[in-house]
Amino acid sequence: MRTDQLPKKTMPVRNWAEKYTQIRNQSIEICRPLEIEDYVVQPIVDVSPPKWHLGHTTWFFETFILKPNFPGYEVFDSQYNFVFNSYYETVGAHVIRTDRGNLSRPSVSDVYRYRDYVDEKMIEFLQGDYLTESLQSLLELGLNHEQQHQELLLTDIKYILGHNPLFPAYKNDLISPSIKINTSEFISFSEGVYEIGFQGEGFCFDNELGRHKVYLNDFEMASQLVTNREYLEFIEANGYQDFRYWHAEGWDWVKQNETKSPLYWHFIDGKWMNYTLNGLQEINLDEPLCHINFFEASAFASWKEMRLPTEAEWEVASNHFEWGKRWEWTNSAYLPYPGFKKEAGAVGEYNGKFMVNQTVLRGASVATPIGHSRNTYRNFFSTHLQWQFTGIRLAK
Amino acid sequence: MRTDQLPKKTMPVRNWAEKYTQIRNQSIEICRPLEIEDYVVQPIVDVSPPKWHLGHTTWFFETFILKPNFPGYEVFDSQYNFVFNSYYETVGAHVIRTDRGNLSRPSVSDVYRYRDYVDEKMIEFLQGDYLTESLQSLLELGLNHEQQHQELLLTDIKYILGHNPLFPAYKNDLISPSIKINTSEFISFSEGVYEIGFQGEGFCFDNELGRHKVYLNDFEMASQLVTNREYLEFIEANGYQDFRYWHAEGWDWVKQNETKSPLYWHFIDGKWMNYTLNGLQEINLDEPLCHINFFEASAFASWKEMRLPTEAEWEVASNHFEWGKRWEWTNSAYLPYPGFKKEAGAVGEYNGKFMVNQTVLRGASVATPIGHSRNTYRNFFSTHLQWQFTGIRLAK
Amino acid sequence: MRTDQLPKKTMPVRNWAEKYTQIRNQSIEICRPLEIEDYVVQPIVDVSPPKWHLGHTTWFFETFILKPNFPGYEVFDSQYNFVFNSYYETVGAHVIRTDRGNLSRPSVSDVYRYRDYVDEKMIEFLQGDYLTESLQSLLELGLNHEQQHQELLLTDIKYILGHNPLFPAYKNDLISPSIKINTSEFISFSEGVYEIGFQGEGFCFDNELGRHKVYLNDFEMASQLVTNREYLEFIEANGYQDFRYWHAEGWDWVKQNETKSPLYWHFIDGKWMNYTLNGLQEINLDEPLCHINFFEASAFASWKEMRLPTEAEWEVASNHFEWGKRWEWTNSAYLPYPGFKKEAGAVGEYNGKFMVNQTVLRGASVATPIGHSRNTYRNFFSTHLQWQFTGIRLAK
Amino acid sequence: MRTDQLPKKTMPVRNWAEKYTQIRNQSIEICRPLEIEDYVVQPIVDVSPPKWHLGHTTWFFETFILKPNFPGYEVFDSQYNFVFNSYYETVGAHVIRTDRGNLSRPSVSDVYRYRDYVDEKMIEFLQGDYLTESLQSLLELGLNHEQQHQELLLTDIKYILGHNPLFPAYKNDLISPSIKINTSEFISFSEGVYEIGFQGEGFCFDNELGRHKVYLNDFEMASQLVTNREYLEFIEANGYQDFRYWHAEGWDWVKQNETKSPLYWHFIDGKWMNYTLNGLQEINLDEPLCHINFFEASAFASWKEMRLPTEAEWEVASNHFEWGKRWEWTNSAYLPYPGFKKEAGAVGEYNGKFMVNQTVLRGASVATPIGHSRNTYRNFFSTHLQWQFTGIRLAK
Repeated sequence: MRTDQLPKKTMPVRNWAEKYTQIRNQSIEICRPLEIEDYVVQPIVDVSPPKWHLGHTTWFFETFILKPNFPGYEVFDSQYNFVFNSYYETVGAHVIRTDRGNLSRPSVSDVYRYRDYVDEKMIEFLQGDYLTESLQSLLELGLNHEQQHQELLLTDIKYILGHNPLFPAYKNDLISPSIKINTSEFISFSEGVYEIGFQGEGFCFDNELGRHKVYLNDFEMASQLVTNREYLEFIEANGYQDFRYWHAEGWDWVKQNETKSPLYWHFIDGKWMNYTLNGLQEINLDEPLCHINFFEASAFASWKEMRLPTEAEWEVASNHFEWGKRWEWTNSAYLPYPGFKKEAGAVGEYNGKFMVNQTVLRGASVATPIGHSRNTYRNFFSTHLQWQFTGIRLAK
Repeated sequence: MRTDQLPKKTMPVRNWAEKYTQIRNQSIEICRPLEIEDYVVQPIVDVSPPKWHLGHTTWFFETFILKPNFPGYEVFDSQYNFVFNSYYETVGAHVIRTDRGNLSRPSVSDVYRYRDYVDEKMIEFLQGDYLTESLQSLLELGLNHEQQHQELLLTDIKYILGHNPLFPAYKNDLISPSIKINTSEFISFSEGVYEIGFQGEGFCFDNELGRHKVYLNDFEMASQLVTNREYLEFIEANGYQDFRYWHAEGWDWVKQNETKSPLYWHFIDGKWMNYTLNGLQEINLDEPLCHINFFEASAFASWKEMRLPTEAEWEVASNHFEWGKRWEWTNSAYLPYPGFKKEAGAVGEYNGKFMVNQTVLRGASVATPIGHSRNTYRNFFSTHLQWQFTGIRLAK
Repeated sequence: MRTDQLPKKTMPVRNWAEKYTQIRNQSIEICRPLEIEDYVVQPIVDVSPPKWHLGHTTWFFETFILKPNFPGYEVFDSQYNFVFNSYYETVGAHVIRTDRGNLSRPSVSDVYRYRDYVDEKMIEFLQGDYLTESLQSLLELGLNHEQQHQELLLTDIKYILGHNPLFPAYKNDLISPSIKINTSEFISFSEGVYEIGFQGEGFCFDNELGRHKVYLNDFEMASQLVTNREYLEFIEANGYQDFRYWHAEGWDWVKQNETKSPLYWHFIDGKWMNYTLNGLQEINLDEPLCHINFFEASAFASWKEMRLPTEAEWEVASNHFEWGKRWEWTNSAYLPYPGFKKEAGAVGEYNGKFMVNQTVLRGASVATPIGHSRNTYRNFFSTHLQWQFTGIRLAK
Repeated sequence: MRTDQLPKKTMPVRNWAEKYTQIRNQSIEICRPLEIEDYVVQPIVDVSPPKWHLGHTTWFFETFILKPNFPGYEVFDSQYNFVFNSYYETVGAHVIRTDRGNLSRPSVSDVYRYRDYVDEKMIEFLQGDYLTESLQSLLELGLNHEQQHQELLLTDIKYILGHNPLFPAYKNDLISPSIKINTSEFISFSEGVYEIGFQGEGFCFDNELGRHKVYLNDFEMASQLVTNREYLEFIEANGYQDFRYWHAEGWDWVKQNETKSPLYWHFIDGKWMNYTLNGLQEINLDEPLCHINFFEASAFASWKEMRLPTEAEWEVASNHFEWGKRWEWTNSAYLPYPGFKKEAGAVGEYNGKFMVNQTVLRGASVATPIGHSRNTYRNFFSTHLQWQFTGIRLAK
């Protein structure tokens, strides 16, 4: 059970403007500690420059809500579609993703002016009488999209600062929530038919829909996440040097990148240090492990002679343990639920087209915005990516 | 139901030598039409030179059966381990895979001498009193391994000859089995708990084990494979030019490779031609489509407003339609069945380590050796690969 | 004869501080029109972020002059060596060049504080009694190094802004010097022994030293640079489609990049447009051609049934025509003059180690700082690079 | 002075057939020790499969001599143009160079049948009355082209066998010519005007033409090539670990390839071994060094505090020392001599288009066919290539 979860309820129409403002401001809040330069760079293709996130989420509201539905709306700058579009193939040519880090313009202040302009129009729009039911869905999608990018903002900012040789802190006064891990126990679940998938009235993404039955064998789930201490044992047992624990593709990844530890771990002067949003610090052994990819998660589980849970097991078990600190790698591929249908139009591109060669993560992390998590949420990433706030929960 | 399927029965010990000889000879039979030069090249990394297949399967018997179990056995050439090892990380350094096509030595006649030497020793061994139960399993694995490489031999030979500007035929007298496709109907299956996975007494791979229950929703399966005629309609409806039918990763593949048709199709002087093992021929519209990858299979299904079956659906339905002409792409990722355990030692590397970012194919193809197929068989390849004899069966 | 050339004279010691200040300020002047974001990005490996240029030239004075020679000097930040070092292998590990565009820190204001700090110390140092003759040489090298980077600043800023889809102008009020091209004639020179290489008292780089005799055949040099008009004729005569005019390596470059015009030319709505520091403008046909690489220069000359001059021809002829608007591609490889010796130490890495697979450009360009040009100056770049202010002078 | 040099004389017309036969047979002689498999592979892009060399040189005579000049000639196989063309852009589309190693057909016996067919027709043709003066030139070019490929055959065969883990010998009975190296002395030459370039009546390539004057400073040339012994001293003095001796581009090459010795040297069980055409052998310290690239040659010279000669120095001095054992790296870029003109048509592509980013080698090697060398010959390769029989002669 995630404690910070908002109660599911239908939004009264008059509160949309307030909710819009609150969520949009949160993105700006996340960027407040940045220098202008930090908004611009893109050290690897998976990371986007913060100013791109700010522009892209704004573009979503402009393109899908204001432009087609707000009479008389004039786009802020017609060239921004080209710059801030992401994957949406239906909405014109887009800057190839690797190029985002080459664009010094629009400047950060231009992007903020763009946000102000669109926010002002959105408030006008929301206070008008335009909000049909399908527009409400789209608006809610836009706000959840904004929240997804808030999480990406944090992960990308951490990457940008954490890969700078000066190791600047994001915030010097950031209080890391004290995370106490109790001894892990295994909770047992019995064989049988279970139901998974979203139901109820709140918002969910299309990929969670289609509540359906699954048949599960007996299984056990760890009550706690794997800690830094446990993972350090794996490192010290030469886990990164023994191919037997790894998938073939994971072993190639280890050898090619000469990987020897999770992302952000540095062995300096005989000590394991960890780049955190507060800067470089000694490893806290009692904290849950963070920033490992699927290959590492699997190898660790294999070394423990256990395994990662499937996403169905995770969802079924999720009311019996605390989650929300780390995105938890499952051993499930990201595939459609029975009866899944892509929606028509650009928004229909949202999830379905990624349903291949991706692995599901469940739960949420310390970087996930409050209210943007539920136990049916299906996050997904490629198996080699470490830069999310990811962790391990063992199953057997 | 596959008609050429051998009855499952336990092999009487005295027949092992005969079976060994029969299966081993089949590999040589496949290579008989080749020129020596055809044994040597490796046009892409996924294709191996035929002489490598011949050497590698021989190396399997030498390394895992003769060397550790046949007293006094002397290896044919100690350097061959280096040359003919494949992925088995436990058995010493191996030539990186891309290098196979650079090796002119051992020569083809050396490889045949190697086969003769090992076969002679294997017959001696099999006629002796060495065959414990676990050695029988290993022997059976070796023979199935040989058969897997027989299928790869055919697919790789087709690639080697089919990518030569002279388009040489593999055999000029090859009679393609007349494949008649009836009008496809959809067969319905009801929601409920089903069982899948291998059971019984014959041989199976470790990845098929763990007969287990799955819960399936109502579904329908096509009784027939998709034909060239149907796929040509997709091409002519600009299916390769419309991103909406494709996974994002599939669309990148289409654009990067400027793909416009299945592998081996060539549009020449206004006609669609097809490279077959008999040489370049006009497309036979009534034959089942062949040589498409997962992206193409999915895009076609999406254009038809249907979908690919899951592997569980396929297995449950498989007794109600004919299969065995094409490996049929499913929409299932290749993942372990409940309770799957990697075996210890080199043989344990066989399947488990590939269980990530691969997609399951079910059935068998015209290239699959007789007796080497069953409806629980889990074949798997990367989603971009076209060179296997793959086809499409629609579901909804 | 270049008209803006300063008279060669020895610098009176008391004027070093003034000269230092004047040259250092010029770098800042060049960056004044930039947004902070423009200082940060690196769209291609050959372009460096402006803040890197500002830091790197400062690092030169700190590392080679202040640190070893100014008693009590404390480095501004010991980690900056790592960030602002360039190729100097003797001065510790350096950030690989492609990474410069990933570094958001040090921030632009930090870099300016670094410049202020080092400049203040340098002025103190120059007003003291420290300046031995060899330090004077080093100081002069540092100032010429700063001027080289001033030219690179302009070329890199043009690339950064010119490859942004918004095509921002560098300065809106920039008055492009009116460049009038007269009809070109050919000036004849007779066969015989000539002398080239630097002599006299002013500053020169080590690669210009070793005044030496060369034997030249009869040759003729164009009095004028090739204009946009002439180059457009080459384009319209399908010069980019006919391999016969190109070196094999140049032809590969054309095909791989699908090049159809000089850098910054765009064919928009039926007109050839040109990105200039004033923004996107229609091509001025009478201006000297700019931003072509060696392959293009050679292909144009070949189409004209002429050739590019050698650097010796250029130097011998240079007093008979006006130069200084474009760096002029020669057909000479960048190689040592007779008797060339690398100096010891880090400064010795300056030029010699680049003397392979580079082509010489002679003259200077509109981006070259006043006073930083002479007819013995040997500029050099790889044959595929277009981003310098390069042009063509024909010979026969 | 090369002792095996044939006297320059005009070929009496009646001897062309004999000369043709003799030179063509030599190619076959070189391939006689090969297994069929050795004819097929292409381990790196710079190496061509032996059967390609045999086909390509045959294609030259068919395409440029027989097809346009021999009435009634029918091409052997019209598709061979596609397979055996090399760079000649005027003669239709050609298989990209990296693909040569993927082609199992035409088979080796087909290629020999192609040779037989063309040779028979050529003899008929040469015994007829067709040989105009310009055809004689073309024929002579074809024969010299054949000889160039004979040298490449040897270098490529050595690469193919020398990069096979079995290290097969090319010939077991090959007697390496005993090469005795005397103590090297330096021969002095005085400053002044010299002449270089081909003159006389025999054959030469277009790049040697334009006998012309050059001005040389005083210089000294070593009478002997650098030996393995001397180069081993460089290795043991950590020459491969000290960037100061290397060009920047060479140093990148060393680091990227982790190079520690010349090609074919292997440090095995505490001894330096050398792959030779006789197989793997201990290094002969008294032999002239072989198989180093330009970067290595330059670095060695720099370590010796000397330099490589220019090609003009080499040619001027060449009558004063023995040459012909190794191609000798010069420090000259491969550029046109004064007055160089590309010939029209496909043959005109022969040399001119490579005159960029290549470095000149002078002399000849043990792999150069008898009669195919002269002191004006300008060989050229890229600076990173080691696979030719290259050596070092120092200058100062």
